Amino acid sequence: MVKKYYSDVGFVSTQTVRLPGFETTFGYQFPYVDINYLTLGNLNKEKNNVILVTHALSGNALVAGQDKETGAIGWWDDYVGPNKAIDTNRFFVICSNVIGGCNGSTGPTSINPKTNRPYNMEFPPITIQDMVKAQSLLLEYLGIEKIFAVIGGSMGGMQALTWALHYPEKVHLCIPIATCMAHSAMQIAFNEVGRQAIMSDPNWNQGNYTPDKRPEHGLAVARMIGHITYLSAEIMEKKFGRKPQRNPEPSDIFPIFFSVESYLQYQGESFVKRFDPNSYLYITKALDMFDWFQNIENPDVAIRNIKSKFLVISFQSDWLYPPEQSRQIVKLLKRANKSVTYMNLNTPYGHDSFLIPNKELSTIIDSFLDLEFNQLTKNGVNLNAI
Amino acid sequence: MVKKYYSDVGFVSTQTVRLPGFETTFGYQFPYVDINYLTLGNLNKEKNNVILVTHALSGNALVAGQDKETGAIGWWDDYVGPNKAIDTNRFFVICSNVIGGCNGSTGPTSINPKTNRPYNMEFPPITIQDMVKAQSLLLEYLGIEKIFAVIGGSMGGMQALTWALHYPEKVHLCIPIATCMAHSAMQIAFNEVGRQAIMSDPNWNQGNYTPDKRPEHGLAVARMIGHITYLSAEIMEKKFGRKPQRNPEPSDIFPIFFSVESYLQYQGESFVKRFDPNSYLYITKALDMFDWFQNIENPDVAIRNIKSKFLVISFQSDWLYPPEQSRQIVKLLKRANKSVTYMNLNTPYGHDSFLIPNKELSTIIDSFLDLEFNQLTKNGVNLNAI
Repeated sequence: MVKKYYSDVGFVSTQTVRLPGFETTFGYQFPYVDINYLTLGNLNKEKNNVILVTHALSGNALVAGQDKETGAIGWWDDYVGPNKAIDTNRFFVICSNVIGGCNGSTGPTSINPKTNRPYNMEFPPITIQDMVKAQSLLLEYLGIEKIFAVIGGSMGGMQALTWALHYPEKVHLCIPIATCMAHSAMQIAFNEVGRQAIMSDPNWNQGNYTPDKRPEHGLAVARMIGHITYLSAEIMEKKFGRKPQRNPEPSDIFPIFFSVESYLQYQGESFVKRFDPNSYLYITKALDMFDWFQNIENPDVAIRNIKSKFLVISFQSDWLYPPEQSRQIVKLLKRANKSVTYMNLNTPYGHDSFLIPNKELSTIIDSFLDLEFNQLTKNGVNLNAI
Repeated sequence: MVKKYYSDVGFVSTQTVRLPGFETTFGYQFPYVDINYLTLGNLNKEKNNVILVTHALSGNALVAGQDKETGAIGWWDDYVGPNKAIDTNRFFVICSNVIGGCNGSTGPTSINPKTNRPYNMEFPPITIQDMVKAQSLLLEYLGIEKIFAVIGGSMGGMQALTWALHYPEKVHLCIPIATCMAHSAMQIAFNEVGRQAIMSDPNWNQGNYTPDKRPEHGLAVARMIGHITYLSAEIMEKKFGRKPQRNPEPSDIFPIFFSVESYLQYQGESFVKRFDPNSYLYITKALDMFDWFQNIENPDVAIRNIKSKFLVISFQSDWLYPPEQSRQIVKLLKRANKSVTYMNLNTPYGHDSFLIPNKELSTIIDSFLDLEFNQLTKNGVNLNAI
């Protein structure tokens, strides 16, 4: 039996469904896709209370609650649950593992039905648009035609933006957090070093590693790089500064072992237990290739056709996805006369800010959802008829 | 014959001298140390025109000119030479490879006289103070008692600071550029990921790799991380943006290969040809352990005893060694009533700014050296008698 931690949501179980395949952005035809997902709360009879939460690079379907099997707590448990910012007493929350992932949805570790072997690097390159397409198939399967809100941070924000642009009739609110319209050279560069760390690990073996000989060192290094970029210099200084982890030990190579070194090593080691190296390659490349207006013939028309209202959120200390990138999204939407609320929060936690409990962020999301949902229901508007 | 490039200095040769050993900061006794060094210009009869240039992490003794053997051009050729910022017509310039390095000075690849094998990881941990101690032995060997100026960027700046504090009677001017008094948690973190990349490369083999099986992948990844931190996000965007390197090729794993990825891979690959992985571990650890007031019993007294005048320089776009770290040095010196000039330059190149040709930086260094040297010689002051 798993140890019980505290989650307002209680125990939950994700489930996996096999859905009809589709053609990816780059023209690969999936015969079918498996999607691992979690739902929380209840779908109301008007079917207008759906909130789709989209996850970031290392996330999964377990958005909140405690997994019955593994004991893990959802990655956004602080924001999703009864009476929380995303109130499961009121909303029907859906979160699914992205395609290309390694937590139950079709990805490089899945068996390729054409070869009966794991895809590994024969997995087709996927895009943020493909992730969204898979989510749209899941919603179809669940009998949901429209969603009240799509919300996510980082890569989740890219998915939210993609929903609003590619499925304008289906999305009422779009809440992209700490994200951008396209990666900068520096964002690509950090991901590329992570990929190089994995691919230069001899265990990677062109992606054909076995479970007992995975490129764990490379993946750990990639994760360490990530962790530095997710934090602000300020919070690292406050958390670790130049504190040594312990007194020198005879086995130490160097006379000082800083606690920030210990922290990074721990983060690297624990990540490799729960993440697939090939998945890391595919998903970071999807991030790098993301361009909001990719495959959009006429961006001006496309943006004019967007029906969602937006709440765009960034964090002052986020140097990986700096506020300027959110402001670019806001400017573009404003220029097209879209309804946009923009909040730049002054948290010290860097890019990680969207994952860390924060009263202000909770209140902003809660208020925005509450106001819009009240308006929707007060006016007796059926979301499906917008 | 090596290809001739353009250098005002012309062809040069570094030389190596074997000097008496010394005890390191952490108590290791070197029986002797080899120091590889270069001198440019001529020592005047007053012996008061010596400028010691101290190099950064991946630097070496070849500060300027073209190496007769390898054809390489000095790493600061833009700033050191006849009529340049550091004018070799006027000054006697000395630059030596740091102890722990891999370009001719005693380091992990050297033969340990106690075992007749390369030191590898039996090399003792070294500090910035040890590097400076080795330089002071070199100066002694060259018959130089006092130096007019010590100047260096990044790790070179730490050495300059250490000279001023530990040899107060010997240094007239101290010019630390883009440096700090001690690494922050984030600076340590980036170095640690580089070290982990090297040490988790199976070829590292606890440091006992052979020349034909070095941990090159790990070192390349470490260098790639370094390169991202040496540039500003702005200049990366300008240089690379989201430009693809070329059209997709059948051998490509992913449909887009960005030029920033190509750049990083090239930087990694070329670095491994000229640098030793163990040296990278030792030198980055020396950087991380550096604390200007380490082993100083009474910092207040020590700083009061400093005799040098200072020119402290930082760069607005340098996020690895941010201007704030230079300002801390300046504040501390001002509080002790030292003579300090501080310049924060608005270059876009990030930490790399000190290595890139820049008229403003040249002028500042040139003017400062000129003014002070004129004053010294006009007043007929013998530097050795200050």
